[in-house]
Amino acid sequence: MDTVYLNGQFIPRNEAVISPDDRGFLFGDSVYEVTRWYGGYFFDLPAHAKRLRRSLTETKISWQDAERIEEISEELIQRNGLGGDCAIVYLQITRGVAPRNHAFPDPPVSPTSYGFAKRHSINTLLCEQGTSLWLTTDPRWNRCDIKSTALLANVMAYQEAHDNGCAEVCFVRDGLVTEGAHSNIFFVKNDTLYTHPESEKILSGITRNNVVALAAENNIPLIEEAVAADMLAYTHESFFCNTTGEIVPVLKIGDQVIGEGRPGPVTQKMQVLFRNLIQSMDPRR
Amino acid sequence: MDTVYLNGQFIPRNEAVISPDDRGFLFGDSVYEVTRWYGGYFFDLPAHAKRLRRSLTETKISWQDAERIEEISEELIQRNGLGGDCAIVYLQITRGVAPRNHAFPDPPVSPTSYGFAKRHSINTLLCEQGTSLWLTTDPRWNRCDIKSTALLANVMAYQEAHDNGCAEVCFVRDGLVTEGAHSNIFFVKNDTLYTHPESEKILSGITRNNVVALAAENNIPLIEEAVAADMLAYTHESFFCNTTGEIVPVLKIGDQVIGEGRPGPVTQKMQVLFRNLIQSMDPRR
Repeated sequence: MDTVYLNGQFIPRNEAVISPDDRGFLFGDSVYEVTRWYGGYFFDLPAHAKRLRRSLTETKISWQDAERIEEISEELIQRNGLGGDCAIVYLQITRGVAPRNHAFPDPPVSPTSYGFAKRHSINTLLCEQGTSLWLTTDPRWNRCDIKSTALLANVMAYQEAHDNGCAEVCFVRDGLVTEGAHSNIFFVKNDTLYTHPESEKILSGITRNNVVALAAENNIPLIEEAVAADMLAYTHESFFCNTTGEIVPVLKIGDQVIGEGRPGPVTQKMQVLFRNLIQSMDPRR
Repeated sequence: MDTVYLNGQFIPRNEAVISPDDRGFLFGDSVYEVTRWYGGYFFDLPAHAKRLRRSLTETKISWQDAERIEEISEELIQRNGLGGDCAIVYLQITRGVAPRNHAFPDPPVSPTSYGFAKRHSINTLLCEQGTSLWLTTDPRWNRCDIKSTALLANVMAYQEAHDNGCAEVCFVRDGLVTEGAHSNIFFVKNDTLYTHPESEKILSGITRNNVVALAAENNIPLIEEAVAADMLAYTHESFFCNTTGEIVPVLKIGDQVIGEGRPGPVTQKMQVLFRNLIQSMDPRR
């Protein structure tokens, strides 16, 4: 039986229950984070912890254990015997349990915190061969920078992609590619990388930000500028990236084949650099 | 102890627990409805039931008890001894419990259904005296016609209104007033009513639709057309309306006093017509 984290306790999953009056359930009034464990260490856990604390600040949820994110994450890995595996840790904090009312509970109630860990390998075949993206209008709210669990828009778009044989969505807002349903999207044009700038229209992805830094360190030109959906035909490569999937080549978006329809050299170079970065984070090296 | 409804059972509220792996909790992957009981009968329950079934259809949640909405609502009232009171019934259906993954569970799992009833009077003072609205950009997704629980945008905007002494929000999208955080908004200009047309940008409010029908039956001119935020100074009256609050006069929106800053004659006439309509639904008459 898995061990999960619930409100400060580590308990068997089948004992973990919450009230249906939790605001995470009634309102999607909650934030979360997913981190990756590489059989001995986390990938950039401080960046994930910082982002979760930012999400809490932006939603005005005061969680007393916000400084314990790293510790809780590590303990979930260890208690589930995942120390040597590829795994992910999920951690969600809600505004807590209160009689239903849009306004925040006054006085505030204790936030609900829930976490679990599970074995989760990288899909190496997908990283090698690439995939197609489902092109659709970005239906989401205007604060995509907050990693909230009010994800119905993402769920519905992702399901549509899935039903159409695509591994991810390509959202377009006001004619510009924003990001995926749970990833950031990059393009290559004339050996220069392009991705949507940080703003309220995208989540500031941890993998995204590491790719941006890697490009700078390796003198690969990168411009944080959104690509117009009607310019896809003139891009040469594309990939999406996120914590659970790393860097995945994109061969086709909607009906548009990208470049030559196979993983391109800049994408492959970023994959190598990213894997080196992962390994460089191993404290045992 | 209240009696709540959970997955087909009527149980004491303190025994009602759900899994934190419920998609309503993890993704806001769920829809809901709030209906009003007037001490002996529901207000337009068939319209609420129809809208909930539409929300289920739009989100592709197959709930086997979708034909029992009226029966469950009535039973919640009776089991809580609210038959003679003003009360509301809340009913929420989620896609169910499954390991976390954006895609719908495949094969599908049983939806989770949760309902409760509680005493809830009309705020007659507010209906008489009116209130101010907090003017803000509509931050929500593009499917506001689905009554989903992914409500963080509504919660945050409503809290901002509340912090600023307003009883509701006035959302503006692309320069046009859409609706409130949990109500529809009407304006009066030269004795004609205006409200945002039904579309994916607003919820098709049951009270709204009854107001529209009442206006038609009583030869009060009404145009389903959005009002521009920069035209507020040229409107003569405003009100918002919803299931829990009926019709509430709006005296000020942001910094703009509406008309003479007091409940206007068309608003008051609609309140009278609406109260007559409520009474006309009483089967004991």
